[in-house]
Amino acid sequence: MDGCMKKIPIPPSTELYIGRNLFSTDQLFACRGAQRAVLIADAAIQDTYAVDLAHKIGAELLTIPSGETTKSIETVCHLVETLCKMGCARDTFLIALGGGVTTDLVGFAASLYMRGVPLILVPTTLLAIVDAAIGGKTAIDTPYGKNLMGTIYPPKAIFADLDMLRTLPEKEWFNGLAEILKMGLIYDPAIWEMGEKNYQDPDLILKAIEGKIAIVSQDPTEQGMRRILNFGHTIGHALETAAHYAISHGEAVAWGCLAEAHLSMRLGYLAESDVQRIAAMYRHFPLKLPKTYTRSALLSAMAHDKKKALGEIRFVLIDKIGHALPFAGAYCRAVSHSALETTLDWMEQWKSHP
Amino acid sequence: MDGCMKKIPIPPSTELYIGRNLFSTDQLFACRGAQRAVLIADAAIQDTYAVDLAHKIGAELLTIPSGETTKSIETVCHLVETLCKMGCARDTFLIALGGGVTTDLVGFAASLYMRGVPLILVPTTLLAIVDAAIGGKTAIDTPYGKNLMGTIYPPKAIFADLDMLRTLPEKEWFNGLAEILKMGLIYDPAIWEMGEKNYQDPDLILKAIEGKIAIVSQDPTEQGMRRILNFGHTIGHALETAAHYAISHGEAVAWGCLAEAHLSMRLGYLAESDVQRIAAMYRHFPLKLPKTYTRSALLSAMAHDKKKALGEIRFVLIDKIGHALPFAGAYCRAVSHSALETTLDWMEQWKSHP
Repeated sequence: MDGCMKKIPIPPSTELYIGRNLFSTDQLFACRGAQRAVLIADAAIQDTYAVDLAHKIGAELLTIPSGETTKSIETVCHLVETLCKMGCARDTFLIALGGGVTTDLVGFAASLYMRGVPLILVPTTLLAIVDAAIGGKTAIDTPYGKNLMGTIYPPKAIFADLDMLRTLPEKEWFNGLAEILKMGLIYDPAIWEMGEKNYQDPDLILKAIEGKIAIVSQDPTEQGMRRILNFGHTIGHALETAAHYAISHGEAVAWGCLAEAHLSMRLGYLAESDVQRIAAMYRHFPLKLPKTYTRSALLSAMAHDKKKALGEIRFVLIDKIGHALPFAGAYCRAVSHSALETTLDWMEQWKSHP
Repeated sequence: MDGCMKKIPIPPSTELYIGRNLFSTDQLFACRGAQRAVLIADAAIQDTYAVDLAHKIGAELLTIPSGETTKSIETVCHLVETLCKMGCARDTFLIALGGGVTTDLVGFAASLYMRGVPLILVPTTLLAIVDAAIGGKTAIDTPYGKNLMGTIYPPKAIFADLDMLRTLPEKEWFNGLAEILKMGLIYDPAIWEMGEKNYQDPDLILKAIEGKIAIVSQDPTEQGMRRILNFGHTIGHALETAAHYAISHGEAVAWGCLAEAHLSMRLGYLAESDVQRIAAMYRHFPLKLPKTYTRSALLSAMAHDKKKALGEIRFVLIDKIGHALPFAGAYCRAVSHSALETTLDWMEQWKSHP
């Protein structure tokens, strides 16, 4: 993809622009027409990207603090109040510049302010490019769990500039890789195999994006099939909540994929050889359970999982690398407490395995 | 409609049940199937309706304080926290019992909690039955104006029990009548004529509901035609905001319809005889501008109107009783400051007119 820009439609109403050196083109400016625009950026990239971009596209600039704890109703209220004060109207564009925290939060505010203003996402991390920005989900956290409030609100456009990833720290690469590999486990075995050969292969990015677009296009409002994207996230989100976000989303999802692959085996769906293959991959990751981890905090956080139905916690499960189980259209199933405990035993012991 | 129940579909996905003595049937209970349900009621009707209904349908009961000031982000946060604490999941039904404040607020919370849980509305005031409950709009207020945050989130079902209106105070009747008559001015001249003959005619209710359903079905997300429902609301909402809700929504909308009819004449669209006919109707209303009214507070509140585009405040206008102007699909237009001032002069003097 060097030196070129791809335009990929995401049904029903989003255009994804992906490539290198995107901000040297006028595409982003053209996208909002003559409307007023407010760029809302992660404060950490104010000096490196935000001030320049705002100037270039003639947008007003607001910043929000970095980190998962920003994804709160307090930040949304403060943002909405600022937009009110500025006199922003229903035709004002909001442009989010930052990682998944920024795109989730600004997307949420855009979906509510005046019942919805036009939204453009400019994800700056691998995780946001391959996952958070795609599919229209917006969210904030509550003290009871991650993403417990949110909307489904597709942006008008997404600008993913791969040049931004050049300066990405290694930790952030693993953060995105966790979601890329998840796509390999649930949907596209070719992604998994590419990852096994070279997990730094940049072609993984486009493959993962294409997979996610295919899934969310089939089921935009998560009535069924889209649920497979939650593989690794029942345990993953609960780990984040229990650790008060002292663990990154990618690390939590890596732990979650590992454990939920084991659970798939424990319940008789997945071969032990596949679990070993999966475990071998995650040995590349700098995985460590948070110091504050306790099993009871994890189980209690899991009780707020969004896939819960009729009082039972449900899991997405896989029966081979590259395929999630449909369970007659539910794409998840309830799991006995004893099976879950065995998997958590295994997960907690994992680092000492050979 | 005595003794019977009508079922009216509202596209895309709502069933409206309207009639008398609805709660003696099991329809509401049947509607939620085997799912957990939480009834959220206006505290003012806890003893008269809420406890009984919750018991009858096997729902848990929460109450929220009465009055427009409840429609705040603080109430939503408190509600969401309570639902989290109760362990409510994505399949838990929320049932709103109360007037427009309750249906707007609970609808908003239902649209956000876990990115949307199933919603049933049980409006208990004339205003909520003919207007707030129909069309899927949810909202809360901000200190900068009314309904400045919200979503479009259609409920599964609406139960409108006309028996509840028997105990409605006269003030509440005028509150609903203001929205009924607005429907006569913008869409259905027969409603206006029925109102002129007898503004207490119960058949007005069903006519107004049918009109609103026809409009919102054509344009559910307010891209164009649905905007005509905002007739009377540019000045109406600003009056409410400027008065800190010391004026009822109906009274504010009645003032707004009166003034925006005058504005329609001032701009050359509406005949003076029609304005006189309209003014004669509103003489039945107990209209009084709030003691705290000032023109500058009104104009400043109007600056946050949701119809604003490219920096200009826009108005829905009518060219006869029963017809709003399409303005090439925009259904509203910007108005000069001097025309607006003339209309406000007239409005402020109105009670002293012959």
